[in-house]
Amino acid sequence: VLTKIISFLEQECKGIAIEPMVVGVSGGPDSVCLLDLLIRSGKSIIIGHFNHQLRPDARKEADMVSKLAARYGFPFVCGTKNVKEYAKDNKISIEEAARKLRYQFLFGQARLLKSPAIAVGHNADDQVETILMHFLRGAGLSGLKGMSPVTHLNEFDQEIHLIRPLLHSWRSEIEQYCQENHLESVQDMSNYDKTFLRNRLRHSLIPDMETYNPAFKLALMRSADTMRGDLQMIEELTDQFWTSAFMEGDPGYLSFNLDILQRADAAMLRNLTRRAVTYLKNSLRDVSFEAIERLVRLVKDDKSNSARIDLADGLFVFCEGNRLFITQSYSDIPDRDSPQVMQPAVICTGESLQLVGDWELLMELVDLTDLEMITSNLDPYQVWMDADLIEEPLQVRCRQEGDRFQPFGMPNGKMLLSDFFINVKLNKRSRGSWPLVCQEDEILWIPGYQFAHKYRVKETTTRSIHMQLRRSPGR
Amino acid sequence: VLTKIISFLEQECKGIAIEPMVVGVSGGPDSVCLLDLLIRSGKSIIIGHFNHQLRPDARKEADMVSKLAARYGFPFVCGTKNVKEYAKDNKISIEEAARKLRYQFLFGQARLLKSPAIAVGHNADDQVETILMHFLRGAGLSGLKGMSPVTHLNEFDQEIHLIRPLLHSWRSEIEQYCQENHLESVQDMSNYDKTFLRNRLRHSLIPDMETYNPAFKLALMRSADTMRGDLQMIEELTDQFWTSAFMEGDPGYLSFNLDILQRADAAMLRNLTRRAVTYLKNSLRDVSFEAIERLVRLVKDDKSNSARIDLADGLFVFCEGNRLFITQSYSDIPDRDSPQVMQPAVICTGESLQLVGDWELLMELVDLTDLEMITSNLDPYQVWMDADLIEEPLQVRCRQEGDRFQPFGMPNGKMLLSDFFINVKLNKRSRGSWPLVCQEDEILWIPGYQFAHKYRVKETTTRSIHMQLRRSPGR
Repeated sequence: VLTKIISFLEQECKGIAIEPMVVGVSGGPDSVCLLDLLIRSGKSIIIGHFNHQLRPDARKEADMVSKLAARYGFPFVCGTKNVKEYAKDNKISIEEAARKLRYQFLFGQARLLKSPAIAVGHNADDQVETILMHFLRGAGLSGLKGMSPVTHLNEFDQEIHLIRPLLHSWRSEIEQYCQENHLESVQDMSNYDKTFLRNRLRHSLIPDMETYNPAFKLALMRSADTMRGDLQMIEELTDQFWTSAFMEGDPGYLSFNLDILQRADAAMLRNLTRRAVTYLKNSLRDVSFEAIERLVRLVKDDKSNSARIDLADGLFVFCEGNRLFITQSYSDIPDRDSPQVMQPAVICTGESLQLVGDWELLMELVDLTDLEMITSNLDPYQVWMDADLIEEPLQVRCRQEGDRFQPFGMPNGKMLLSDFFINVKLNKRSRGSWPLVCQEDEILWIPGYQFAHKYRVKETTTRSIHMQLRRSPGR
Repeated sequence: VLTKIISFLEQECKGIAIEPMVVGVSGGPDSVCLLDLLIRSGKSIIIGHFNHQLRPDARKEADMVSKLAARYGFPFVCGTKNVKEYAKDNKISIEEAARKLRYQFLFGQARLLKSPAIAVGHNADDQVETILMHFLRGAGLSGLKGMSPVTHLNEFDQEIHLIRPLLHSWRSEIEQYCQENHLESVQDMSNYDKTFLRNRLRHSLIPDMETYNPAFKLALMRSADTMRGDLQMIEELTDQFWTSAFMEGDPGYLSFNLDILQRADAAMLRNLTRRAVTYLKNSLRDVSFEAIERLVRLVKDDKSNSARIDLADGLFVFCEGNRLFITQSYSDIPDRDSPQVMQPAVICTGESLQLVGDWELLMELVDLTDLEMITSNLDPYQVWMDADLIEEPLQVRCRQEGDRFQPFGMPNGKMLLSDFFINVKLNKRSRGSWPLVCQEDEILWIPGYQFAHKYRVKETTTRSIHMQLRRSPGR
């Protein structure tokens, strides 16, 4: 086992800084063995223990690890949280809560102590059980590849490495090592409520599978190693594709070039989607097969611009023109191009009103001298209306339930504003805060699109209200 | 089920010719259902049945399928072979023999009848069982992806498609369909000696796994679909890499640029290796994880030029200079550059001897006028030797066990020819047939390398034998 661990540190950790490393020690055989081996291999170490407060003996176990640290003469850090409470408060399983709080503690300590790596005691049997659990729930490559010997847990830290030096050592080897070296340990509690499932796998399903292939566990380990390499190849391809398809994004949203997505095959889209969810959520935990297939169909579907589909954990996907967006909320997407009204406001002649998105609305009273110029105006961001029909101040607001509008050129009746927006193909995302210039309940002008028929400048009109929506100067 | 099959034919078979298709009908529920569905969907069909002669009722089953064909009014072709005998003769399992002979028959008929596709009745349960078998033996992506709905079996034919329209239909759906449509069937025998294993999986392991995840079978199907896409991505990458690393090859061997291989990562080498084995063997059946890892190490190892490693089923790998070769036999690799002696021959002055590889050996007697010119000769493909010591004809042969040689510049003793070859770094592959010019048992000249010390031209020499090995003119 010592030879294995030394070759692990030499080969898998080649070229990455791992010292001083925080070693997560629960007090179970795996972590006690790992600690002993790492100390023998001469590494610089900080011993970390997290008390999950899940068992009556938890306190004693912490003491035991503390004494162990003292005996070895290495620094010891200890943390604790009420895992049960945290699970309840966050509506997650106890196992999930335990994992989260434990890693939060270990990564937090590593950051504090400027440690570039955390070592944990997962062994080959844990690996087999993990892969089998993924297999049972129908995971793809990313699950069947199992745990990685050297990896990052981006949800906790993007820089600090997580290393698993015992990943190719069997539980029996570890127990033998502990016995031969008189290492005391407690029962390992790192997998609390999975214990029942793991125990069933360990004592029932895996032995059963070994009757089909006595070398099943070894075969699975090898297959995982191979698939880890394959996944890496796919990830590199996905990287390249991401680079070619990516348009914009920040921690709150991502947008991709829809044309490029449409030319890709389904497998690539699936991998891009998984990557995108991981990027936005720091984890892939909640994305289902169906959700990913929905996205694939959305992209391949010609009607992509009318749909919005749920992806995972609050994320949704929609298309806008040539772009596909993934986000948790429309408001996470900076609307750099559209004018937006956040709060209703009023405007009078001679004033200018600042709108979100670096736009401003101007209003002035003008004498009509050149009717021709006005009627031939093709700029939808400017309007001239009959001043005699208008009573200041005008309201500037966004749409309201039931808004209707009588566009210029439609002498009779009014249409639903929602229908008008659909007709002019205004982005769904922009409709909610698009500025409307109103007089009482009546919409006079929809900047960028159309003004109300009734307020048009006629031959008899002498004075006109001129309004303009433009980018704020000096921007 | 009919809807599924129609959408299968529309989607999966889009853009490929599948009619008229040969439908493999064993008489079991799957194939009987498949046949009925394909006929209802209006396809042009030829019914094919292969009699494995494995059961007492085999003959009756063939009759039943024949009558079925007559009832439907479609052409019927039937073949038979003694599977047991074939298995014994070829030292393969009965299941393997049955598969091979059955597909040989079906593909043979398809070729004869100019049919572009063969349809077989594998169902979703078969798929789950197949994947599980691969999982138990530790397969990678290519096994875990399961059977493909549309594929080629290159070992039988490179053009004709094999399609599996029922691959997403469960056995229960198929049985229900047979019942509702009063379709008679016999017990399916397509998996003869695997029956025991499959039965165990079907009745024991899979139900057991469903206690962990009731939707296990569906989950596995989905995961297979995803992995099939991932594998395709990897295969495209492997294609590109193959193109960049490939140097030469034919059905008997492949050679790749070693420098390019050395820059690739292990996952890519593994995939290239699998592809190469499939290319040379038309199947990947015998290549083990260890064999592939040996190749990866060989490539990464600096001493690659001294090793020869076994790969699979008689294939081996060796490196030569800047190349890595994969072959079953050195003689499968055309030795375009080296002169080769296939049969011992003799040569006299004034003659020329043709050697394999478009080389010729010339011999002439010359008067010595310019000793300086001779002693300053730097061309190892020409030699001048003391004619007084030589008795014609000279023998030209390849090496023999125990050959020794006294190279020029070594006045005393002889060295083993094998050591000489190693010293001068002649390719292993070329050593066996390299031409040696001999007088009785004594090697006078090794063209391209050195002549024997004793036969050197001395100041007292008056007449000399001049020999030359050169590319045949007019080539």
